[in-house]
Amino acid sequence: MNNLTIVKVGGAVVEDPTTLNTLLDDFAAMQGNKLLVHGGGRAADKLLNRLGVEIKKVDGRRITDKETIDVVTMVYAGLVNKNIVAQLQRRGVNALGFTGADLNIILSHKRPVKTIDYGFVGDVDSVQTEVLFSLIEQGAVPVVSPITHDGRGQLLNTNADTIASELARALAKSCGVTLVYCFEKPGVLMDATDDNSVIGTLTYDKFKEYQATGIINEGMIPKLDNGFDAIRAGVASVVITNTDGLKNGRGTRLVI
Amino acid sequence: MNNLTIVKVGGAVVEDPTTLNTLLDDFAAMQGNKLLVHGGGRAADKLLNRLGVEIKKVDGRRITDKETIDVVTMVYAGLVNKNIVAQLQRRGVNALGFTGADLNIILSHKRPVKTIDYGFVGDVDSVQTEVLFSLIEQGAVPVVSPITHDGRGQLLNTNADTIASELARALAKSCGVTLVYCFEKPGVLMDATDDNSVIGTLTYDKFKEYQATGIINEGMIPKLDNGFDAIRAGVASVVITNTDGLKNGRGTRLVI
Repeated sequence: MNNLTIVKVGGAVVEDPTTLNTLLDDFAAMQGNKLLVHGGGRAADKLLNRLGVEIKKVDGRRITDKETIDVVTMVYAGLVNKNIVAQLQRRGVNALGFTGADLNIILSHKRPVKTIDYGFVGDVDSVQTEVLFSLIEQGAVPVVSPITHDGRGQLLNTNADTIASELARALAKSCGVTLVYCFEKPGVLMDATDDNSVIGTLTYDKFKEYQATGIINEGMIPKLDNGFDAIRAGVASVVITNTDGLKNGRGTRLVI
Repeated sequence: MNNLTIVKVGGAVVEDPTTLNTLLDDFAAMQGNKLLVHGGGRAADKLLNRLGVEIKKVDGRRITDKETIDVVTMVYAGLVNKNIVAQLQRRGVNALGFTGADLNIILSHKRPVKTIDYGFVGDVDSVQTEVLFSLIEQGAVPVVSPITHDGRGQLLNTNADTIASELARALAKSCGVTLVYCFEKPGVLMDATDDNSVIGTLTYDKFKEYQATGIINEGMIPKLDNGFDAIRAGVASVVITNTDGLKNGRGTRLVI
């Protein structure tokens, strides 16, 4: 296997059946080896609300108590993952759903409590690439949900952008990896209200400059940190785009 | 691969953490190639109740409407499957969770409406054994949840006993298969109130006789029908037992 494209699809794309269908059409049409990482979006929040479980977040990051890890496992690894797998199979893509626990592909540890106790949130320790390599070479298309495990029986909620970056970095040791973050915007924008203001190429220095001036903010910051980490670790290409960009190759390309 | 043991573990075993732990200890200790099929038990009913979704069953069989297929997908393929996978990984078993949609291993069709509309319930059409064979030979232990798909993007709720029987029958074409139905009783009982009344060997004729006289009834009947179907299709051995029997080899053995 020489090349692999990893597409990370965000929650907002996943939770809208129309954008999800478009994404899956485009993903199915992509040539070559591929792997999909998905978030869960607001489906978990919706279920937590219906169950009367309080949603706790700090700076947009979910505090995952016992009941919440059960809910995100159900939603991400069950409902979202298996529907994507079935929809890809319908399109002739031989999808295979994964959490980090399956074949032990992603081992993590429960985030240590400093000022905030995030609960059952996992920070990635290692990615086992051989088994993924072997499956992809046999024609399988892994579909990875953002749940990992600690090797001691505990499932852990793990950021999907981070999982995509960790998988890309680990697999880049053995093949050329393109990592595409596919979300609801056409790329990193100079003006958040103008979809025509996509930054075509973003250097790390410019990222830090735009972050300081507030042009780049909120959820885009960890996404870009993950993306630049991937580039530094040898991932050939990192692109941030939407479903259109996935098809026509547009979006924001990161360079260091 | 010459031999394979398929263990089907029932809902009542799965939903009690103590019996589940015992089962997973014993399953992990089993030598040779193995595959686990699990039911969901009352966890799905509990979630349906909490969500205020009406539980509809006819003769113990679930009517699976749109909301119910989402819930059983979450519970069986998400919560139950991934916790079993993580617990097996903790025990050094290289578990990989499956629904029928994953790698397209079990294709089914929505049960046609005759007198009763079962909703999103799938009757199995085909089992793809090559990919399971290959994975098991590479050391993976498939953990199969009772969700299949129709190849057109629809997930379907499918009886776990049937899945175990279908997998056993398909895999028996290429290797010697032992199928163990592991549930809460030590075997098929002559007297439902006496756990010491296990029938050691049960022929099909005796089964039909005991069914006519009411000694064997309710949920045991489809389980035994599935078991005898498997024997007839070339499965080497079918045993009905509990977690103790899984370890010490006791239980009811089916013969034709």
